[in-house]
Amino acid sequence: MRNIAAKELKSASLPQLNGICEEIRAEILRTVSSNGGHLASNLGAVELTVALHRVFDFPRDRLVFDVGHQCYTHKLLSGRAGRFSTLRRRNGLSGFPKREESEYDSYDTGHAGTAISAALGLAKARDLKGEDHCVIALVGDGSFQNGLVYEALNSLASLNTSVLIVLNDNGMSISPTEGGMHDLLEELKGEKETDRSVRLFERFGLRYAGICNGNRLEELLPALEEAKRELDKGSALLHVCTRKGYGNSFCENAPVETHGVGRVCMQEYSAALGEELVALAEKDERIVAVTAAMTDSLGLRAFFDRFPERAFDVGICEEHACVLASALAAGGMKPYFAIYSTFLQRAFDEIIHDVCGQKLPVVFCVDRAGITGADGETHQGVFDLSYLSLIPDLAIAIPGNIGEFRSMVRMAAKFPGPIAIRYPRGGLEGSACEIEFGKFHILHSTSSDIVVLAAGETSLALAEKVRLRSIKTGRDFTIVNVRFLKPLDREMLTALPQRHVVTIEDNVLCGGLGDAVRRFYGNCGKQIYSFGYRDEFIPHGEPRELSEEYGRSASDLETLISEIFDACR
Amino acid sequence: MRNIAAKELKSASLPQLNGICEEIRAEILRTVSSNGGHLASNLGAVELTVALHRVFDFPRDRLVFDVGHQCYTHKLLSGRAGRFSTLRRRNGLSGFPKREESEYDSYDTGHAGTAISAALGLAKARDLKGEDHCVIALVGDGSFQNGLVYEALNSLASLNTSVLIVLNDNGMSISPTEGGMHDLLEELKGEKETDRSVRLFERFGLRYAGICNGNRLEELLPALEEAKRELDKGSALLHVCTRKGYGNSFCENAPVETHGVGRVCMQEYSAALGEELVALAEKDERIVAVTAAMTDSLGLRAFFDRFPERAFDVGICEEHACVLASALAAGGMKPYFAIYSTFLQRAFDEIIHDVCGQKLPVVFCVDRAGITGADGETHQGVFDLSYLSLIPDLAIAIPGNIGEFRSMVRMAAKFPGPIAIRYPRGGLEGSACEIEFGKFHILHSTSSDIVVLAAGETSLALAEKVRLRSIKTGRDFTIVNVRFLKPLDREMLTALPQRHVVTIEDNVLCGGLGDAVRRFYGNCGKQIYSFGYRDEFIPHGEPRELSEEYGRSASDLETLISEIFDACR
Repeated sequence: MRNIAAKELKSASLPQLNGICEEIRAEILRTVSSNGGHLASNLGAVELTVALHRVFDFPRDRLVFDVGHQCYTHKLLSGRAGRFSTLRRRNGLSGFPKREESEYDSYDTGHAGTAISAALGLAKARDLKGEDHCVIALVGDGSFQNGLVYEALNSLASLNTSVLIVLNDNGMSISPTEGGMHDLLEELKGEKETDRSVRLFERFGLRYAGICNGNRLEELLPALEEAKRELDKGSALLHVCTRKGYGNSFCENAPVETHGVGRVCMQEYSAALGEELVALAEKDERIVAVTAAMTDSLGLRAFFDRFPERAFDVGICEEHACVLASALAAGGMKPYFAIYSTFLQRAFDEIIHDVCGQKLPVVFCVDRAGITGADGETHQGVFDLSYLSLIPDLAIAIPGNIGEFRSMVRMAAKFPGPIAIRYPRGGLEGSACEIEFGKFHILHSTSSDIVVLAAGETSLALAEKVRLRSIKTGRDFTIVNVRFLKPLDREMLTALPQRHVVTIEDNVLCGGLGDAVRRFYGNCGKQIYSFGYRDEFIPHGEPRELSEEYGRSASDLETLISEIFDACR
Repeated sequence: MRNIAAKELKSASLPQLNGICEEIRAEILRTVSSNGGHLASNLGAVELTVALHRVFDFPRDRLVFDVGHQCYTHKLLSGRAGRFSTLRRRNGLSGFPKREESEYDSYDTGHAGTAISAALGLAKARDLKGEDHCVIALVGDGSFQNGLVYEALNSLASLNTSVLIVLNDNGMSISPTEGGMHDLLEELKGEKETDRSVRLFERFGLRYAGICNGNRLEELLPALEEAKRELDKGSALLHVCTRKGYGNSFCENAPVETHGVGRVCMQEYSAALGEELVALAEKDERIVAVTAAMTDSLGLRAFFDRFPERAFDVGICEEHACVLASALAAGGMKPYFAIYSTFLQRAFDEIIHDVCGQKLPVVFCVDRAGITGADGETHQGVFDLSYLSLIPDLAIAIPGNIGEFRSMVRMAAKFPGPIAIRYPRGGLEGSACEIEFGKFHILHSTSSDIVVLAAGETSLALAEKVRLRSIKTGRDFTIVNVRFLKPLDREMLTALPQRHVVTIEDNVLCGGLGDAVRRFYGNCGKQIYSFGYRDEFIPHGEPRELSEEYGRSASDLETLISEIFDACR
């Protein structure tokens, strides 16, 4: 698409602006169709973003997104149209706001709930420096469930500054929104009892600047102009109602399914989780499932349909979800709390303080672990082995394929303490097999002096790939499937005769499997080599490429194997 | 104090109940005077807790505390009066609710905001099991600022269960409460516009069961009776106004100072932080300070008084505080975010996602690191070296004494990226000295084949103590002050000639200094031995005793040194 200059946008007539919206919509559809990405959320926010660019002066004024699932139009309007076809590709445009990418991106996002806090910080910095630009937080109603938003609203009055909060209310996060705040917003839309609801925001020092249809520029433009004029009176909230997927009938009718569009849709681990949990729950009344606004992508729809009383989707509230799961366990239930690796970071303190501190039998189903790819830095699940293994009393299981995963999900039902099972997106089938708690499994045994300890299916695949190459030159090695990071299989580790031990994990090196093995062996004379990710944030790109590039190179592993063989000769 | 049976409490007259309150108050004062602990918060909640025990049937009914700074009366009324003199002492009663300690303690707490989520979980478990006891969450108004409380309220309606939330409103957390929710509660107390405020709670599916004076049993008892009767109609909030420190004029007049009473009051690191920040801020307009309801205990009162415009206390909102700091940095300020190690866990995701993901120059002043002692499991700061060092782009500095700390605080002002400085309570003076970023310091050099790498003052003290013992038998060793965990001083590590390397840290072993040093040296033939805490939760007790017992034993270190010497001979 062509770059549209600010000048053109500022001087365009209403029909011309609507034409620009259509251009943008077509470009988003075209690019997401080929590159994957967030579709319905972006389509719904085209007019709103065009209106913001018309009314405000970016980058002088600052626009902070929440999550960032609606930033494509902003990218197209800020000089990045020419590169838009590189969206979500290695070295191309990120699917999220990125300060490194453009001065139009004021603040990086990816996780929910940060925008108002961030806007307040930018606004206070502006005030302290004596500057006078506007700061706008664009927040979806899904994020309004998140505790961070409330913490920001609660401190807004005492911060004594001025930000404009634009609430993009499409009635959904990824799935339809629920909860008290949602009911309040619905009430505002219904225009009954408006006065009282408005006062809720006013109590938090926030003027309610009205409500408008966010897919109609003729309503949006005057509302934003008015809100901008009034900003010197203090912070305000403009309530903008948009339709997710607007302008594309397919997306409008299937907003959940078209929220995110990936090139690989089936997530086999997630599907297996759903099947196993339903089967377990049929026999065991203690089984309950907890999620934070991710029911479908975690594979739990069937469970929610079959056992609505025992299924809890609390919205984008990872901390509350974790404490709720913890207390359900304290009350005698057996909760499976399913969540993406990167979002579980939000509940780090609650895993320690609520679950493990009380040794409560919560099962953490840590999905999308490892490099997840096109969503980039904020969505890679490469820290969980480290931040989980430092927590006392937490067991950590890592399936090597879906068959093992199924066994682990079943085993966890009988496990008396907290346990995390971490697994990647995608998934290799594998026959169901008996898993013994805390035991590794020797996949391939040789008499050479090298053993590779690999955790998880991408690590096992890497080991196997290199072995198949190496055996061509007569260099074979033992491969062990590290099914548990905690507890380690001390018995097997002690018995392994090989002097050279290679570890492979789909996680940063710091605090992961390699460190645990090195700590275990201490000074017993083993030579230990670790493959995992370097101490850097990993950007968006193809998972396999990124894995190679950020520390798990097959050729490096092959070279290492050769060198060890040659040195042993 | 004598144990008061439930029967006595249930049949006592009002004057007798007031007499019991006086007995309890005297016991709390007596015990806290000798053992330290939370005074004003507990004194204010005596009548409220007595009334709860009179009206409800514990342990059949479940009482969930928030934080737990008000649980002493509950302990005295649940069969633990005879052991109350052991409060906060090793193997004695915990200062917080502990399920392991008594069936009357339904849920462990220590950090803020968890009670409503936990009560909801216990209530849903009750519903699913077809039981019919009451579940009560006792929450202070300070916790009502925390996002977790909002997340729980937001999901309360859709959870469709019944809990009683007792809001213990004394207008303070540790310091006076601020913010929109506080204003709302004040408005309710003022009885103006009550209708509208009440509807805020009702919108979240929560009946407002009225307001009463929580230090007057004659008001409290009927209010609780009524609330209990109505619980079958669904969840309700009873607003109870108490006076912090009630019944003791000294505490009533100094509620901040007597919130927590320790035997060692001066926190030298905290005091030094305050002094250095004021001095820095005089010269550098970019310097701002952010805290989460801990201004005084972090030593920042003078800064807040001197630079109110540049000082942000956002209440018990660690996540919001972290994002606010991050955005202040994005806006060109230089934020120092001071917080206790254990509470920083709450902002783990924001450190990754907001601060380090954007490489923003926030300075984390991580106070109360290491074993903190009498507060127990939930307050030990023994995980931060692990959970911080796994985060890319974050520097970690560990001062060996207060002089070094001062230098680090100054150095951080010029540091262009995120940096954490972690330090214990207490503090050894030390002359100010030049710190070079990323450089260790050799404290004592010998020609023996052993070097001890010690991080932080308690580790250095342990090394020095053992050296003084060992040199009596001619066994001397080199001591290096590890001033930075990230980056490690690669140059010095490479140059150190000693074959035996001992690491000491005031942190769990998993993912800390020992692992980092072992990873660095790899297979170069060094013998590495690590002292740090075992993979267990560390209970309350005397820090020095706990340190010995949980992995940093001086005699073990002395034995190790002897053995190495003997083996080298």
